[in-house]
Amino acid sequence: MGNIVFRVCVFSLVLFSGVALAEPKVAIALHGGAGTISRSVMSPAQEAEYLEILDQAVELGRSRLLEGVAGVDVVVEVIQLMEESPLFNAGRGAVLTWDGQHELDASIMDGETLQAGAVAGVTTVKSPIAAARAVMRQSEHVMLAGSGAESFAASVGLEVVSNDYFTTERRLQALDRYKSSRQAGLPVAPTSKFGTVGVVVLDVNGNLAAGTSTGGMTGKRWGRIGDAPIIGAGTYADNQSCAVSATGHGEFFIRYQVASDICARVKYQGKALETAAFEVIHDVLEPVAGEGGVVAVAPNGDVAMIFNSEGMYRASIDGNGKKTIAIYGDGAAAGASSDG
Amino acid sequence: MGNIVFRVCVFSLVLFSGVALAEPKVAIALHGGAGTISRSVMSPAQEAEYLEILDQAVELGRSRLLEGVAGVDVVVEVIQLMEESPLFNAGRGAVLTWDGQHELDASIMDGETLQAGAVAGVTTVKSPIAAARAVMRQSEHVMLAGSGAESFAASVGLEVVSNDYFTTERRLQALDRYKSSRQAGLPVAPTSKFGTVGVVVLDVNGNLAAGTSTGGMTGKRWGRIGDAPIIGAGTYADNQSCAVSATGHGEFFIRYQVASDICARVKYQGKALETAAFEVIHDVLEPVAGEGGVVAVAPNGDVAMIFNSEGMYRASIDGNGKKTIAIYGDGAAAGASSDG
Repeated sequence: MGNIVFRVCVFSLVLFSGVALAEPKVAIALHGGAGTISRSVMSPAQEAEYLEILDQAVELGRSRLLEGVAGVDVVVEVIQLMEESPLFNAGRGAVLTWDGQHELDASIMDGETLQAGAVAGVTTVKSPIAAARAVMRQSEHVMLAGSGAESFAASVGLEVVSNDYFTTERRLQALDRYKSSRQAGLPVAPTSKFGTVGVVVLDVNGNLAAGTSTGGMTGKRWGRIGDAPIIGAGTYADNQSCAVSATGHGEFFIRYQVASDICARVKYQGKALETAAFEVIHDVLEPVAGEGGVVAVAPNGDVAMIFNSEGMYRASIDGNGKKTIAIYGDGAAAGASSDG
Repeated sequence: MGNIVFRVCVFSLVLFSGVALAEPKVAIALHGGAGTISRSVMSPAQEAEYLEILDQAVELGRSRLLEGVAGVDVVVEVIQLMEESPLFNAGRGAVLTWDGQHELDASIMDGETLQAGAVAGVTTVKSPIAAARAVMRQSEHVMLAGSGAESFAASVGLEVVSNDYFTTERRLQALDRYKSSRQAGLPVAPTSKFGTVGVVVLDVNGNLAAGTSTGGMTGKRWGRIGDAPIIGAGTYADNQSCAVSATGHGEFFIRYQVASDICARVKYQGKALETAAFEVIHDVLEPVAGEGGVVAVAPNGDVAMIFNSEGMYRASIDGNGKKTIAIYGDGAAAGASSDG
């Protein structure tokens, strides 16, 4: 019913008001990670918790975009909401490395200027996505790593926390299980669950932006850097083509240049965003068992949320106002999909 | 004269021997960095030294390729020759960070399998390119950083050296000059000279490979990571399109995805390698003052060596046996260009 009323309203506006036609489009799509996410192991209460924060995040983003906030800043604000939630593997709630520490990665890109910033392996910066934005805006560099990145973040006044700020009971247990399996020589599936968060937007000025923030993989070692802080792999934005944030088994996303390859197919082959994203996730990654997904937005306000895993926490409001919130990949998505 | 004899021989072989026609093509192109390289400041002795090692490196590569060694291994062997030379900003002879240390980066990619490996910010691994290959072949990961990468390299038996193994008098003086200028508030041009090394090859099995190794930028701070260890920025290889190694102002090479964009233009737009490389270096990077260059090789044995800086140390032997060794960009290249 609300749907019909909305459509009639839009139709009336189109007919009777040139101003309404000229109203700038905004769009947003976000993910909270992809992987093995089964209805069978998720309680109704857990499901409701995820749907609620996904809804909160996508509505926050849309309202800030409509206020005219620049795309890059909306990306940071929405990712910060997700970094602060213990539900996702980013910021508080991040997974633990083999050594029981948190090493966080993030990156951001501005589709108008192709400016970009990234941090890798930071352990005490409260908001890794804010640090990535600071690298982009306040340094000569694109990517800073480790203690150097932390010194930089502190030098520009970003909030510093102790490493255990990020720790949750759930991730401690996950590390214990992972180490027990590894040490017992049992098969482990480090790729079975990813909780990276990412946001892509189209702002009122027609600019695209993308950002990604993660705690990496449970039990990671040796200073491993995944795709999240790699421009072109986990994050890419170019007003000429699209903005993409990825989540999944990072090594594949680096090797196959997932974010920039989707944009290259849009730019050089003239493909629709949905087609380009589908091809890379299903035709390129699936045959090599590269598990994961992407959210993406095009300059015309189209959004795509594509994944080859069992599920992906996701939400979007496209340029026509159509809202989608979903978790599973079985078509009968939990959550709402509505116009307006 | 040698040229004519060679051509007659090739012609005879084509006429009289089907075997000769079936002989697999090999090709190699390499760089020792791009930047402000003026005849006026280079002594004849220095010039001869550079030309000699460029010649030695390209001939080593070609002979190993003709012996049937796999492309990835040829890339490592040739880069190691350059890492061990104090003339280049990679391995011994690497530049110094603001803190007077060496932090080395390298990456490698196999165009057949799209496997890749990279290390960033390593300080005690004698051969960063060998460490990158070990990450590719002996770990589950693509990119390892800092002390974690060093632990991994040691765990697989790679040679470890003390950080001052990499130090040369010339780079100590360069850091002193850089810090004096910065501290006096004078303008500095950190981008005026780059000595990253990189090699791309086509091997006898028709496989492409690319690798890059660097000491980064003089006076770098905050754990800065440039394009050299970033797959898609400094290094990319895909048998379906091309193999590229880049050198220059790394931040631009990351933002504009230089290596993978060249390959995307070949793959999606059907452009010739030379055209694609020219467009990215001159039409994309030059307008935004993104200084540097690339070497690239195509599956058909074509090579391209393109730069927008004053010079680039470079050498190649293409699929037809044409050899080029040069330093400057003024057309009248120092060194030889010959068929055969």
